[in-house]
Amino acid sequence: MPDRFIDPAVQRPVTLKSIAKQLGVSVTTVARSLKDGHKISAETVRLVRETAEDLGYVRNLDGLRLRTGRTMSILAFLGASADDEIGDADSVGILAGIHRRLAGTDYTVRAVPVIPGVDILPELANAVRMRQADGVIIDHTRPQDERVDYLRESGMPFVTFGRTDTSTDHAFFDLDNHDAAFKSTRSLIDLGYKRIAIIGSDPSFRFVQDRLEGYRHALTAARLPFDPALALNVERQPRLIRAATSRLVAEARPDAFLCENELYLIPTIAGVRDAGAKPLDDYGFSLRSTNNLAEYLALRVTSAHYSRESAGWNLADLLLRQIGGAAPKCLQTIAKTDLRHFNL
Amino acid sequence: MPDRFIDPAVQRPVTLKSIAKQLGVSVTTVARSLKDGHKISAETVRLVRETAEDLGYVRNLDGLRLRTGRTMSILAFLGASADDEIGDADSVGILAGIHRRLAGTDYTVRAVPVIPGVDILPELANAVRMRQADGVIIDHTRPQDERVDYLRESGMPFVTFGRTDTSTDHAFFDLDNHDAAFKSTRSLIDLGYKRIAIIGSDPSFRFVQDRLEGYRHALTAARLPFDPALALNVERQPRLIRAATSRLVAEARPDAFLCENELYLIPTIAGVRDAGAKPLDDYGFSLRSTNNLAEYLALRVTSAHYSRESAGWNLADLLLRQIGGAAPKCLQTIAKTDLRHFNL
Repeated sequence: MPDRFIDPAVQRPVTLKSIAKQLGVSVTTVARSLKDGHKISAETVRLVRETAEDLGYVRNLDGLRLRTGRTMSILAFLGASADDEIGDADSVGILAGIHRRLAGTDYTVRAVPVIPGVDILPELANAVRMRQADGVIIDHTRPQDERVDYLRESGMPFVTFGRTDTSTDHAFFDLDNHDAAFKSTRSLIDLGYKRIAIIGSDPSFRFVQDRLEGYRHALTAARLPFDPALALNVERQPRLIRAATSRLVAEARPDAFLCENELYLIPTIAGVRDAGAKPLDDYGFSLRSTNNLAEYLALRVTSAHYSRESAGWNLADLLLRQIGGAAPKCLQTIAKTDLRHFNL
Repeated sequence: MPDRFIDPAVQRPVTLKSIAKQLGVSVTTVARSLKDGHKISAETVRLVRETAEDLGYVRNLDGLRLRTGRTMSILAFLGASADDEIGDADSVGILAGIHRRLAGTDYTVRAVPVIPGVDILPELANAVRMRQADGVIIDHTRPQDERVDYLRESGMPFVTFGRTDTSTDHAFFDLDNHDAAFKSTRSLIDLGYKRIAIIGSDPSFRFVQDRLEGYRHALTAARLPFDPALALNVERQPRLIRAATSRLVAEARPDAFLCENELYLIPTIAGVRDAGAKPLDDYGFSLRSTNNLAEYLALRVTSAHYSRESAGWNLADLLLRQIGGAAPKCLQTIAKTDLRHFNL
């Protein structure tokens, strides 16, 4: 490894002063040009920045850290999957959105993948005690979430992706799941489907309840009956979903399926195939999704779509505003999904 | 935001000295207990660490950074997808593996998601010039990769996931793609399939060539002919793959499909369905994968499996060893996949 990486002292550091000297301008001019260009001509700003880059100027964030007592870093605990599970591609997109929001600020983000079943509370508490960050983002929020309780207690600024039962007083970004299910169901009804099954996970999650309400609301609006035999709650295990869907098709004769997400949609398709009642192409499907999986599947799919990058951007934006002093309860965003149709 | 986050100076910092005083032991004992416990009894190590935690001791990495000239940080540029593409869940798993390797060291990782088509060279060059990290991990390596050229030139330690044409002299972690394709093809042959199609991307990628060779090798070993009509190279666009597979089924009558990964497998299934020659369950499928998607799909699938977490662990391990002084050309790992069978 060359010296410059293990011993920066062998090179004389480039300072605001040395840049000023080289260009024959004042240190203030250099500082302002590198900061925001306030009261400096565009030409000078360009020249200073180019020179700083050529000389390899390294902005000393340590000074900023000492002056403000801030770490200039945020922590994002993002959902991962057990090593050989299908995986959670959304986290990378969320991280890309966070990066996009932080670009041009002095903040960096440290992303910590969270494997399901692993308790992150010790790591979170350690990060808070060691003051490793100025703020925290967490996702896969539960209605009763001890991470949220801990963070609220600690005074560390934080934003959740999803609401909790106590979300009235903390910052969050969430999707309008009631609206997503309502629009998706109405879209399937408009396509002529009449016996729409709804398939999802644990009804103790708020978003699962919201989906069911949006679905029932759309049925009522179209004067279709709600048949409890068409509402299926099943653990997110492919074999269980597949078997339960197959039974559902045999017993309740649905013509369409409103699935929670792709991890429900794919085994639902397998279950429908197993039941063998009608060709796959005759059925309608719907899911909440961030991507174009439906195009790959080549089935009739309505997707309630949201942008994972935009979710990340919003999470980081809410957090920066909170670090900047805004009140958490004023930092709550609920975003609408938009419908996309595939193979229709 | 409470004061302790914006002004740490209002609290007296907990030092090695104050911990030593509280416990009535020497500063050396405290330092060793917190570092590696060398020559200290297990009981004392436990006591010191508990006390340090109770007092809220913050290890001052700034001193370490100044002393060594290191940032104690590594950068990982990890593949993401365009915002609404299916996504790359592997990156989160790789990041989890990197975290697992760094746990217990003083290193942290900063993950930068790389959207396809976005040139990361400026950001990479900036990170090198600004000495933002002691080492870099990059993935989705190309045979001719200007990021690799830049990093080699800069002297910054780096490790690639995948080999380049110049990989003789840099550190890398890669999978044995020849072996994966050989084993997968042989497995399909053992199951009775005789007309196995191979579907993949751009043959200018080394791993695509390696797969084709492994496939041909297995055919030869089983005295099966190589039929060029069964080898399909098509861009990773679901519509293109679906249409090309449908044509392939009509024209070349394959009975099994060796797909590059899930982004090829899923539209291949759609194409086979479109062709409508035989029920889906009659076909065999194979892919290289990190996950259990095949279980969700409920088809006859042989998967050449590797652990994305293990890949991340290895990448971080190779990088730390290089930062520690090991020669890059001694830091080259090629890992074998293992076969998993689904619904067989």
